[in-house]
Amino acid sequence: MVEERRAIDPKEVRFYSGRSNPELAGKIAGQLGILLEETHFSRFSNDNLFVQLGASVRGRVVYIVQSLTPPVSDHLLELLMMLDIAKSAAAREIHAIIPYFSYARSDKKDAPRVSITARLIADLLVTAGATHVMTMTLHSPQAHGFFSVPTDPITARPFLAEYLHSQNHDPKKTVVVSPDMGRAESATRFAQMLGLPVATASKTRISDTEVQISGLIKRQVRGFEHALVYDDEIATGGSVAELSKYLVESGVQKVTLICTHGLFLGQALAKITAVPQITEIVTTDTVYRPLERQHSLITTISVAPAFADAIRYNYLHESIGNLFTFGDN
Amino acid sequence: MVEERRAIDPKEVRFYSGRSNPELAGKIAGQLGILLEETHFSRFSNDNLFVQLGASVRGRVVYIVQSLTPPVSDHLLELLMMLDIAKSAAAREIHAIIPYFSYARSDKKDAPRVSITARLIADLLVTAGATHVMTMTLHSPQAHGFFSVPTDPITARPFLAEYLHSQNHDPKKTVVVSPDMGRAESATRFAQMLGLPVATASKTRISDTEVQISGLIKRQVRGFEHALVYDDEIATGGSVAELSKYLVESGVQKVTLICTHGLFLGQALAKITAVPQITEIVTTDTVYRPLERQHSLITTISVAPAFADAIRYNYLHESIGNLFTFGDN
Amino acid sequence: MVEERRAIDPKEVRFYSGRSNPELAGKIAGQLGILLEETHFSRFSNDNLFVQLGASVRGRVVYIVQSLTPPVSDHLLELLMMLDIAKSAAAREIHAIIPYFSYARSDKKDAPRVSITARLIADLLVTAGATHVMTMTLHSPQAHGFFSVPTDPITARPFLAEYLHSQNHDPKKTVVVSPDMGRAESATRFAQMLGLPVATASKTRISDTEVQISGLIKRQVRGFEHALVYDDEIATGGSVAELSKYLVESGVQKVTLICTHGLFLGQALAKITAVPQITEIVTTDTVYRPLERQHSLITTISVAPAFADAIRYNYLHESIGNLFTFGDN
Amino acid sequence: MVEERRAIDPKEVRFYSGRSNPELAGKIAGQLGILLEETHFSRFSNDNLFVQLGASVRGRVVYIVQSLTPPVSDHLLELLMMLDIAKSAAAREIHAIIPYFSYARSDKKDAPRVSITARLIADLLVTAGATHVMTMTLHSPQAHGFFSVPTDPITARPFLAEYLHSQNHDPKKTVVVSPDMGRAESATRFAQMLGLPVATASKTRISDTEVQISGLIKRQVRGFEHALVYDDEIATGGSVAELSKYLVESGVQKVTLICTHGLFLGQALAKITAVPQITEIVTTDTVYRPLERQHSLITTISVAPAFADAIRYNYLHESIGNLFTFGDN
Amino acid sequence: MVEERRAIDPKEVRFYSGRSNPELAGKIAGQLGILLEETHFSRFSNDNLFVQLGASVRGRVVYIVQSLTPPVSDHLLELLMMLDIAKSAAAREIHAIIPYFSYARSDKKDAPRVSITARLIADLLVTAGATHVMTMTLHSPQAHGFFSVPTDPITARPFLAEYLHSQNHDPKKTVVVSPDMGRAESATRFAQMLGLPVATASKTRISDTEVQISGLIKRQVRGFEHALVYDDEIATGGSVAELSKYLVESGVQKVTLICTHGLFLGQALAKITAVPQITEIVTTDTVYRPLERQHSLITTISVAPAFADAIRYNYLHESIGNLFTFGDN
Amino acid sequence: MVEERRAIDPKEVRFYSGRSNPELAGKIAGQLGILLEETHFSRFSNDNLFVQLGASVRGRVVYIVQSLTPPVSDHLLELLMMLDIAKSAAAREIHAIIPYFSYARSDKKDAPRVSITARLIADLLVTAGATHVMTMTLHSPQAHGFFSVPTDPITARPFLAEYLHSQNHDPKKTVVVSPDMGRAESATRFAQMLGLPVATASKTRISDTEVQISGLIKRQVRGFEHALVYDDEIATGGSVAELSKYLVESGVQKVTLICTHGLFLGQALAKITAVPQITEIVTTDTVYRPLERQHSLITTISVAPAFADAIRYNYLHESIGNLFTFGDN
Repeated sequence: MVEERRAIDPKEVRFYSGRSNPELAGKIAGQLGILLEETHFSRFSNDNLFVQLGASVRGRVVYIVQSLTPPVSDHLLELLMMLDIAKSAAAREIHAIIPYFSYARSDKKDAPRVSITARLIADLLVTAGATHVMTMTLHSPQAHGFFSVPTDPITARPFLAEYLHSQNHDPKKTVVVSPDMGRAESATRFAQMLGLPVATASKTRISDTEVQISGLIKRQVRGFEHALVYDDEIATGGSVAELSKYLVESGVQKVTLICTHGLFLGQALAKITAVPQITEIVTTDTVYRPLERQHSLITTISVAPAFADAIRYNYLHESIGNLFTFGDN
Repeated sequence: MVEERRAIDPKEVRFYSGRSNPELAGKIAGQLGILLEETHFSRFSNDNLFVQLGASVRGRVVYIVQSLTPPVSDHLLELLMMLDIAKSAAAREIHAIIPYFSYARSDKKDAPRVSITARLIADLLVTAGATHVMTMTLHSPQAHGFFSVPTDPITARPFLAEYLHSQNHDPKKTVVVSPDMGRAESATRFAQMLGLPVATASKTRISDTEVQISGLIKRQVRGFEHALVYDDEIATGGSVAELSKYLVESGVQKVTLICTHGLFLGQALAKITAVPQITEIVTTDTVYRPLERQHSLITTISVAPAFADAIRYNYLHESIGNLFTFGDN
Repeated sequence: MVEERRAIDPKEVRFYSGRSNPELAGKIAGQLGILLEETHFSRFSNDNLFVQLGASVRGRVVYIVQSLTPPVSDHLLELLMMLDIAKSAAAREIHAIIPYFSYARSDKKDAPRVSITARLIADLLVTAGATHVMTMTLHSPQAHGFFSVPTDPITARPFLAEYLHSQNHDPKKTVVVSPDMGRAESATRFAQMLGLPVATASKTRISDTEVQISGLIKRQVRGFEHALVYDDEIATGGSVAELSKYLVESGVQKVTLICTHGLFLGQALAKITAVPQITEIVTTDTVYRPLERQHSLITTISVAPAFADAIRYNYLHESIGNLFTFGDN
Repeated sequence: MVEERRAIDPKEVRFYSGRSNPELAGKIAGQLGILLEETHFSRFSNDNLFVQLGASVRGRVVYIVQSLTPPVSDHLLELLMMLDIAKSAAAREIHAIIPYFSYARSDKKDAPRVSITARLIADLLVTAGATHVMTMTLHSPQAHGFFSVPTDPITARPFLAEYLHSQNHDPKKTVVVSPDMGRAESATRFAQMLGLPVATASKTRISDTEVQISGLIKRQVRGFEHALVYDDEIATGGSVAELSKYLVESGVQKVTLICTHGLFLGQALAKITAVPQITEIVTTDTVYRPLERQHSLITTISVAPAFADAIRYNYLHESIGNLFTFGDN
Repeated sequence: MVEERRAIDPKEVRFYSGRSNPELAGKIAGQLGILLEETHFSRFSNDNLFVQLGASVRGRVVYIVQSLTPPVSDHLLELLMMLDIAKSAAAREIHAIIPYFSYARSDKKDAPRVSITARLIADLLVTAGATHVMTMTLHSPQAHGFFSVPTDPITARPFLAEYLHSQNHDPKKTVVVSPDMGRAESATRFAQMLGLPVATASKTRISDTEVQISGLIKRQVRGFEHALVYDDEIATGGSVAELSKYLVESGVQKVTLICTHGLFLGQALAKITAVPQITEIVTTDTVYRPLERQHSLITTISVAPAFADAIRYNYLHESIGNLFTFGDN
Repeated sequence: MVEERRAIDPKEVRFYSGRSNPELAGKIAGQLGILLEETHFSRFSNDNLFVQLGASVRGRVVYIVQSLTPPVSDHLLELLMMLDIAKSAAAREIHAIIPYFSYARSDKKDAPRVSITARLIADLLVTAGATHVMTMTLHSPQAHGFFSVPTDPITARPFLAEYLHSQNHDPKKTVVVSPDMGRAESATRFAQMLGLPVATASKTRISDTEVQISGLIKRQVRGFEHALVYDDEIATGGSVAELSKYLVESGVQKVTLICTHGLFLGQALAKITAVPQITEIVTTDTVYRPLERQHSLITTISVAPAFADAIRYNYLHESIGNLFTFGDN
């Protein structure tokens, strides 16, 4: 019978986590009031992964949480194997919850004979068994179209905006800055939520870690005191640190960095904190950060409520419109 | 035998055109030195389309040229039927050549319960039989990833840039303007080819035909005399006319409009020519324009050589790198 | 849980209509006691369609009603987009209700290099997301086999027969006439339901609008006073008008035209009413007819109860045998 | 390289036969001037089939000839296994040549919960590896649309008509008779080729072996001396024998039976020869008939030239239009 | 609603049997307390099968029981047609219950250009409509991986072991013997359940019915009095009879034959009973044995409880772990 | 044109290597007389892989060599991306050459809710674009059936046997030993090639790295002086070292270890060389071994000629029968 569901029935769902971010998975499960099932992970002597799900999934609604953080390939294969297990063990629905879908940045063919890997990964997830995908802040809104199963790209923007809103920024003094043209649309939406103007830098990527900032950004930020640099992810911190220095040179006195996915890999925090005008980094917990990658400047906003709500709405067959990323990211 | 091809063998290929742009199809065929085969089109009394290809396709390499211009639905169905005929008649390869892929603008879910129609169309083309797709200047580079068969998004940018380059613009006086944030990356590349700076307007779409220009565009264009407004397509002309007026108010004295797909529907040319500072419109022939949509301001650059080259390189198994749109559009 | 459903739960279903026949869709919804949800339709300036479904479909059973009436290509694409929206928005079941499936007549390859378009359309519907199809009176019973998802071709014959039965036709005086060999089997079944003999014309189609009646039809109808001409659809009315004249020449004094799909396009009603012996046209509402295509000779029998019953039986997991077209059409 | 083929290169093709009709396969291979490769067939003790193809198929064009004659299930599975072997052994093209596709009669759902087995078989052939299908005189032209790979339904009609034409039938005296409404269209075409009139019986099938002839057939054949009964297949002969008697009762003095697929199973020949007015049976060799099913009344026209031509045209990438069944069967 | 099921609701399931083993199907249905629905089977005069399921399957959970016993091809096609009927009649879940999956022995390519028929059959089942498969004691555990839908290979081993356990075998005197290397792993598990040692013969298959026993089996069984020969299936009995004689020559005084699938075809029972030291044959009812293939030496253990439990657990969304074949067979 | 190929045309093929074993890839290319093309590999700062193939693949036959050695997940994803690039760049054929397919050991479900990962990987390879797979010595012959594209599992056995044969072993003194029941069949074939007897140990795996040897192995090897332990792969060396000690305790004086895939991970060589009776380790170069994993006891036989021959035969459309693994591994 297809009947309206009224609440999540714990006996009918199974909630699992890969090894990338069990902390977030645990929070989501906690918010939903359901058990995070055990999963046994190990490695054969030949480096092959072994995964065993810890409770029968037959006929059940299965959720598997995995962020594609380093080591990305292992975390991806782990996820594919978990999906495959659920499929071949006759799960009824299989939801891949991917808070950080790292390959979303490989969303176009910007050189000959490279892979649009985000589309490849989307296809692999379906081959392995995913019947539905949830993810957060894809690098481009178009990447949504790579998936052949229903996919909900949740946005963290309202949560980030709510926090910034509480700081009462003055549109005369504060400007939202998009670090490059590709993020311009999303930054514009973010600025609209805060009632602030938006400026866009034109970043020319010289290599994976070096960029050159050009264009008319100086003209745009002239006169503003405070810049809210808004990006989807910060990995090595190199480009936002460079941009911040450039903004300071352009007259800005204070910089807040805002991003959904705060990886802060390698020397990222050292590079960022080397710019004294950067006074706060606002991010979320889509990426698990061990102690050594935490810092007093960082404000972490949990996305567990967002995923828990999205899962609940989906389970209950209600619209998840407010959480959904419409047309940007 | 898999052997290097040395030239297009006219006996081994079949070249057809749908009814949207036979003129361009004829030019491409002419450049390739092959025959544009006849196709019989008619309509049953119940409005159903009837299509019959005019020469045996068995075992052959088939090319079908169709732009998705108005009436778009008819032109799309015509194309799907032609692909289906070629498939069921045992063609060896079936290339859908779509100079203007109109639904490319429907590339993201910017509201609840709408269709990412560009992905849907991509899937329909494959279902109908396309084994390869060629198109030009997709609205976003990510749309490339919607196709599950090899797809070559050709760019018109070098052809447009070459023309503009011959006008010797001064980077002190001339600025390339992207009409909205979504086109910013592509405009940046275009500007780089011409050695010019780039400014980006932040356009808020109020309806399909009305937009509001906001942001810091005035700051960016201040001091420039000539603006090259660079877009992928111009349909009703409303937003580029508005933007041009805004630029003029900001001090710009002369505006050149540049776009790959020049539809100029309805009152488009009237709206544009009502802005006296618009002195030239540079576009291509991806869209067929009957006499009533032609105008002395319009410079049309044919893309037939680009498609002919791409088809030839593909047939001869050579790289088409220079014609390919890498990572933008 | 898979449990017997007892009644349609309005909260669990979503009922939508394309723009071809909202009147019939409304009647079906009314019979089912459920709401016809709103859908927003518009067109972008480049002629691209825009569709937005008006209520969340997540996890629900979705019905979409669309007849493939002129403009057929637009109505088809509209339907494909609605299916795609429902699929990507995670509907549980997606039922395409196509009262008039116009391309059913393109069911065989009767010339080289033409499309069996009915099969193509069936495949496109599945690609777009249909998990079940309902339709009425396919041109041939074999077209049922074109669909790779469960499909219910409902028949209108019992409804038409019931109406004719009430007129008490005398098997000595009245003969059922099939307008061509292809409809002979279906006409035979219809005749059996009424206890009447059946005659078959051999129509040679000269063009889409012209036919030549030949064969031994005169021998068959000699002596009968009243002919019930039974066809699946009447479009331009040309061939039934010709046939009626021929029957009159053969001695028949009165003709009743009967068809499921009454399109009456162009001069159809003029051609038909020009034959004074045609005293009644019995048809259904699978095709919406605006005022200008209505006429006092036409008796319209609504198929809304048939579709409502079929939908209800399907939802309740009951057999819909009585409504089903078994082996003919 | 895709290059026009000029002749069949024996080294590049492999021609195999299942066990249903090696005689016909041998004739086709002979006409093509290529070798009929050996195939080893056996059965395991548990009744499982074992098949081994006798020469490497890697990268080659493979043809497999199999008629679905009794024992049909074994012959079908044999064919599926041969296709599977060719597929997994990396054949380049795999052509299933099925002169008699018996399940073509199961082409519609004429009762609840039965299978449209012709569509099922078509899907199984593709799953097993067929990339192209050739068959002859499908029971209905629509069955062509069941195949998702290119399919050529060859017609035997011109060959049968040529033979009958040589007998110089007089349209005043001779009438072509379709044994039932379903064959009416095909019989009409056959009659047109011979310049003869056509009559259609209305056969009501009471069981698989019993039928009742009704309708207005007497009126149609009155005055004709000779009836050419034209059917696609004759299995038990029951219905054509009954029809022949009925025609004789209606005044016909001589009957010729014509069919593509002459199975003549069980008492078929006894039943037919019990009607002395049946003076000739014209059929083909799509079905292998051992000595005990041969008879002096039977004229057998080989279809080997038709299949050989179709294979050659297909291999050489030429149109096979003349051999193709357009819109009937 | 996805809700935990508490008991099988007879109104929501449909249970059918093919013609291979209705006795076992009846027992399973009996154990489940549900009705074995009628199915109508017949054959057309051209040897084509006709199947009609006897009750509406719309929206229901359908189970179809069929063993692939001789005539295997007919039984397989019967099963494929039943699956197809259920699929096209809109069943919700379709479970193929195949107690004896004969082609499981064709699980590898042990000669050039042969078929891995077990994989082919697995693919055909999915094409025809199976959404879940249950089977028993596949020849190799790897064959499980051939299925692309969830598959439960049930084991009969615990049932067989329980029976043997009740005979209190002494590990000093009794040895389990694997008839060939391929069964060695499974025999080892069986021996472990009984606390007995295990020996493995090295059988070289000379033909389908002849084998040569070699290797070091004599050394292994020396000193043991009683051998429990453990195999998956016994067809003609030739190899187990030979092995038994060899064991007797090696000093064994008593032999018990144990197998899941007891076909005992042809002279099997004669060959076996010709070895007086064979005192018992323990098997199951996966294969229906008519009276002439029954014998007083045979002990038959019904697997109906195993299948009934597996079906019930699956329906109720409980783990079927205990019945499952983990890693062997 | 499909024409017999006579030699590999270097212009028509592209040969690439992943990063796992470029040495072997280079040797294969060398044997084929073709160029090993460059590939650019790098990693984005977020650990995402980036791959770019170094020469146009359009219309060409592409070979990609990658062994699934540690880090396995990275090497697998690298391979999937290379396949995807070739597919989307319109390669004609895409051959995945996987000398060491590590996940082949995950070929059965030996516990509840685990993955048959070998089947999953096979499906992922096809999704990514492989049209043909070559691999060596799969753990089980059945794993061949997991692939839905043509797959050639090459065997190293003749190369290993040839080397051992040159040592002139005496069947009275030397016995081939299979380390567990699962390898018994393959060891038997190997023994047959050398004319030696075969014994089989029954290994009970306690954990991934610990095993217990039991069964009747002592009885089997008694009296033999030299044991040739034959396995598919040696990873940590734990179990072969244990087995060797056990054999020595059983009276064997000398042990030769033979395996296709010599990983020798961690303390493997230390464990093996700690058994002084192990006098030689014979293996191949499917796995790249850096200096620290090389040892004077190891004899390495290159499989490059085997793969080069298989690739050449396949390219030339000749049978590769002699190199193929028929029914074992």
